[in-house]
Amino acid sequence: MDDSGASSLKLESIRESLIRQEDTIIFSLIERSKFPINSRGYDESLGLVQGFSGSLARFIIEETEALQAKAGRFQNPEEHQFFPENLPPSLVPPHDYPKVLYPAAASININKRIWDLYFNELLPLFTVVGDDGNYASAVASDLSCLQALSRRIHYGKFVAEVKFRDAQQDYEPAIRTKDRDALMKLLTFENVEEMVKKRVQKKALAFGQEVSLNHNDKKVKCKVDPYVVSRLYEEWIMPLTKLVQVEYLLHRLD
Amino acid sequence: MDDSGASSLKLESIRESLIRQEDTIIFSLIERSKFPINSRGYDESLGLVQGFSGSLARFIIEETEALQAKAGRFQNPEEHQFFPENLPPSLVPPHDYPKVLYPAAASININKRIWDLYFNELLPLFTVVGDDGNYASAVASDLSCLQALSRRIHYGKFVAEVKFRDAQQDYEPAIRTKDRDALMKLLTFENVEEMVKKRVQKKALAFGQEVSLNHNDKKVKCKVDPYVVSRLYEEWIMPLTKLVQVEYLLHRLD
Repeated sequence: MDDSGASSLKLESIRESLIRQEDTIIFSLIERSKFPINSRGYDESLGLVQGFSGSLARFIIEETEALQAKAGRFQNPEEHQFFPENLPPSLVPPHDYPKVLYPAAASININKRIWDLYFNELLPLFTVVGDDGNYASAVASDLSCLQALSRRIHYGKFVAEVKFRDAQQDYEPAIRTKDRDALMKLLTFENVEEMVKKRVQKKALAFGQEVSLNHNDKKVKCKVDPYVVSRLYEEWIMPLTKLVQVEYLLHRLD
Repeated sequence: MDDSGASSLKLESIRESLIRQEDTIIFSLIERSKFPINSRGYDESLGLVQGFSGSLARFIIEETEALQAKAGRFQNPEEHQFFPENLPPSLVPPHDYPKVLYPAAASININKRIWDLYFNELLPLFTVVGDDGNYASAVASDLSCLQALSRRIHYGKFVAEVKFRDAQQDYEPAIRTKDRDALMKLLTFENVEEMVKKRVQKKALAFGQEVSLNHNDKKVKCKVDPYVVSRLYEEWIMPLTKLVQVEYLLHRLD
């Protein structure tokens, strides 16, 4: 833990990043919603890619991650791979990212869970039924969604670190007794969560609107249902972020 | 030219696609603007990628295109490669896209020009000076911008085809005499161009705003300057789309 790490860990900048990441998540959902669900791209047994056993989505995302690993993407502690097995090493010189996270707690990766929830639960909620054949483009959009969600949820590590540093005495007892419920309670602020839900709903309305020069055009058709975005935060993003925080804190005194 | 092609080529659907693509372009610019310019990622002589002679951006974009080609992306006549040389063949079964374009005119690709203008002129206009080391993520965003711009500009082929079919008698003389100026004049509607410029400016304001729950928060800080988006359309997107249209029409009677 060096000085640059400490100074870059300000609650204000964490908060700003979380708010900015909301926009990225909403943009990526809106962009994926241009395509129908294109289920064939996710069928593991269809053998769509000649010489590859698995879905087209898995093929594209595994290969894209391998390429991004070579380009150094995962050196940034904010980034997490979906397929960490056999990832090639970076071919670019290392960048000196601030060392903020506690090493024993830094390696948590719940992307397997994010993958499952995205494809099984979320995707059908904001895409229409159908198949337009644009699997490669749709999956590129899926990857943007997955990476945005993963970054937001794993940002819980930074949130937990700053909360821990600000009130170490409050967290230590629950960490020592491995009391997950007590940690979850310490980390939960219902009024903040309500505010986040309202804000992302408002953003989905602002970013998903049909912008027209005609001021009398009162169409409120939205590209992604603002309620789905609010629900995404309530049911998945915020609970999973807190899960990451709890897991991180449980290792914070290792 | 089959029936499905003719029926899918409606001016209304072309117009809708062009309007929807504006959103994609603006989202992609906003997302790229999260990172500083990160010039080292574009330096061709720096040798940043071990074993690759060229910039990190070229490495990532060439390799990503190769992967997307295997996944079938470029089977869609709306998609155009930046590095068409030595692209691997698709590994997925072909999709039956409507055959809309006139084969002798369909192969126009001005991505070299789009690449140069994006990196040399546009990127410095909407990113701040600096280097945060996130080259791989920034270049992934560049590719989204490039692909969105390329799709929009090459969509001129579809625009030209529908205009030609609607008024063949008006275009034929200029095509036969290869009169580019006359074609450009036939294709230019200044009032429409003015409307597009105003609309994209309004969209940049709507999508780039800081959405807050506080109604009295009158910050109008915008993530990407709406004037830059309007200028992008005026100086580059619309002229290059018309260039594609002219080139397409010049081959429409081959």
